[in-house]
Amino acid sequence: MSEETKGSSLEEFRQFRERMNAEILGENNLVVNRFFALDGRAYEAGALDVRTKELLGLVASLVLRCDDCVTYHLVRCAEEGVTRPEIFEALSVGLIVGGSIVIPHMRRAVDRWSELEQRA
Amino acid sequence: MSEETKGSSLEEFRQFRERMNAEILGENNLVVNRFFALDGRAYEAGALDVRTKELLGLVASLVLRCDDCVTYHLVRCAEEGVTRPEIFEALSVGLIVGGSIVIPHMRRAVDRWSELEQRA
Amino acid sequence: MSEETKGSSLEEFRQFRERMNAEILGENNLVVNRFFALDGRAYEAGALDVRTKELLGLVASLVLRCDDCVTYHLVRCAEEGVTRPEIFEALSVGLIVGGSIVIPHMRRAVDRWSELEQRA
Amino acid sequence: MSEETKGSSLEEFRQFRERMNAEILGENNLVVNRFFALDGRAYEAGALDVRTKELLGLVASLVLRCDDCVTYHLVRCAEEGVTRPEIFEALSVGLIVGGSIVIPHMRRAVDRWSELEQRA
Amino acid sequence: MSEETKGSSLEEFRQFRERMNAEILGENNLVVNRFFALDGRAYEAGALDVRTKELLGLVASLVLRCDDCVTYHLVRCAEEGVTRPEIFEALSVGLIVGGSIVIPHMRRAVDRWSELEQRA
Amino acid sequence: MSEETKGSSLEEFRQFRERMNAEILGENNLVVNRFFALDGRAYEAGALDVRTKELLGLVASLVLRCDDCVTYHLVRCAEEGVTRPEIFEALSVGLIVGGSIVIPHMRRAVDRWSELEQRA
Repeated sequence: MSEETKGSSLEEFRQFRERMNAEILGENNLVVNRFFALDGRAYEAGALDVRTKELLGLVASLVLRCDDCVTYHLVRCAEEGVTRPEIFEALSVGLIVGGSIVIPHMRRAVDRWSELEQRA
Repeated sequence: MSEETKGSSLEEFRQFRERMNAEILGENNLVVNRFFALDGRAYEAGALDVRTKELLGLVASLVLRCDDCVTYHLVRCAEEGVTRPEIFEALSVGLIVGGSIVIPHMRRAVDRWSELEQRA
Repeated sequence: MSEETKGSSLEEFRQFRERMNAEILGENNLVVNRFFALDGRAYEAGALDVRTKELLGLVASLVLRCDDCVTYHLVRCAEEGVTRPEIFEALSVGLIVGGSIVIPHMRRAVDRWSELEQRA
Repeated sequence: MSEETKGSSLEEFRQFRERMNAEILGENNLVVNRFFALDGRAYEAGALDVRTKELLGLVASLVLRCDDCVTYHLVRCAEEGVTRPEIFEALSVGLIVGGSIVIPHMRRAVDRWSELEQRA
Repeated sequence: MSEETKGSSLEEFRQFRERMNAEILGENNLVVNRFFALDGRAYEAGALDVRTKELLGLVASLVLRCDDCVTYHLVRCAEEGVTRPEIFEALSVGLIVGGSIVIPHMRRAVDRWSELEQRA
Repeated sequence: MSEETKGSSLEEFRQFRERMNAEILGENNLVVNRFFALDGRAYEAGALDVRTKELLGLVASLVLRCDDCVTYHLVRCAEEGVTRPEIFEALSVGLIVGGSIVIPHMRRAVDRWSELEQRA
């Protein structure tokens, strides 16, 4: 299916992501590789805990309307024990800030979240 | 197929949209549910008629480059009797405002519109 | 004042716009000059009338959050006799589509519109 | 000064915001007024606390690059006792997600935050 | 597969693009057709050579996160003899300017580029 | 004046930028400081020369509509000996990709460029 509906399975997403990250990092472009490393660091615990940072990443991804980024942060939120009501409240902030244009991405986000809950 | 080409069928779009709207509204998050209700109200007749409002929604969706939102407003425009030349003029305003980055979404929009005409 | 508040006067906007358009067009870059000409054509009457097209331009500019573009289309809407309730309904569609991030631009738009009404 | 540098004072921002909100709400456009009310509800405590929601609003505003929205959420974060290191970590997530295009808005955000600290 | 992973094949992309361009141009909307013509002119050699202009189009498409536009400019870059390290450096500028939100599009871009290299 | 017209002087821009960069880097947030360093590295000569990379940064900034970022890259382009026709061609690519919403930023960019030429 396409952007307009449901998106590929979590497993397809993960495999494509891993394969392409390996190909990208294997190119040894200094700027790209350092950015990828820094991207990981941004979500480590500090003054804010990991859960809060993942929720920040989730809402930023939602208002910028990137399904892959939303999926990634949902997976991480699930790993960190974020609850369904917390996810919905985070999504609601993104919805108010970003408007109805966010709704199709919210549909896919909720579908992903339900998929993640069923695996747990 | 994928975002890069044609997208899923109108029927798949509708089914996924309905299923997920039901799941989202069933969560009873006050902010989300009120926003969904308000989203419907914004397109009701008032000082501007429904056709004009749907065209506004269409062009806003096009320049923000959301295929699902474009599809939704095209369906509504068809229901309101908007003609093909009117759709093209609305799309042309979106194209000028939003630039060539809008073109892939315009392709999918025109493809959708032709699909809607064939059903009528 | 700055983007964060009210913006320059309509008269300053007009003067800067005219001076820079003249400088830009004077460069005789074919692509740029043709685009500027085409930008004018997009709002001419056709299957849709001028008022509707200006409202489309207004809402597209609002959701893309460009104050100058919003100002330009408000001036044109005023010239075409669009009423205050019509402007508010068009802005309300932009607000629902674009979310709260649109609000600061809506404040400046309404302030501009009131300024335009006072001149009439 | 202009968007390119520092922006107006917090006091100017507040006055313009209040004056225009009053003018907008006074128009009694149902959709607009309900949206404004809903915008307030989105940040109330629920499954997530107010501080977390304000940080979500801050980062969403930063990646969408709206100075006024960033200012608003910084003021609210200050009221809720968010610390400077927490603000910097939230901004750092926004910077990584949104890229260098976010930096000018981050400069204005940090300048605002320092202004808020000096008042406390 | 979907936006979230790999996208359709280059061949599907090309066929859909050609079919829809023909349908769109066949409508004879003056503004649309002139814009399409102008879009071609923007990348012709002038003070800047074609390679540089295609790289500009590529990075603009990447930061605006349009997979189809990225694919189009990658095809043109391949035709103009741009090398893999040049593509990676252009993508790295887009990544720094646009942030991590660009990464899913970068994955698809690199996958496309490898596909283009294998055909050469 | 405001975002809607000309922006602050180049000198004000530079002073604010330097003062805030110092304050930001002085906070010693690891992610932020590494990102700032990486931002510098992205424009160093490699497979692509510095001029080309600055033009890529310019067009990316234009289509993302960040006046400060455009100003920064114009200053760097001037230092690298980029000519006025080259700047106009780069801007023309940004205009076609990004549409008329880019025009107000293009006006300010051309005004800046003329200011830079007068100093040379």
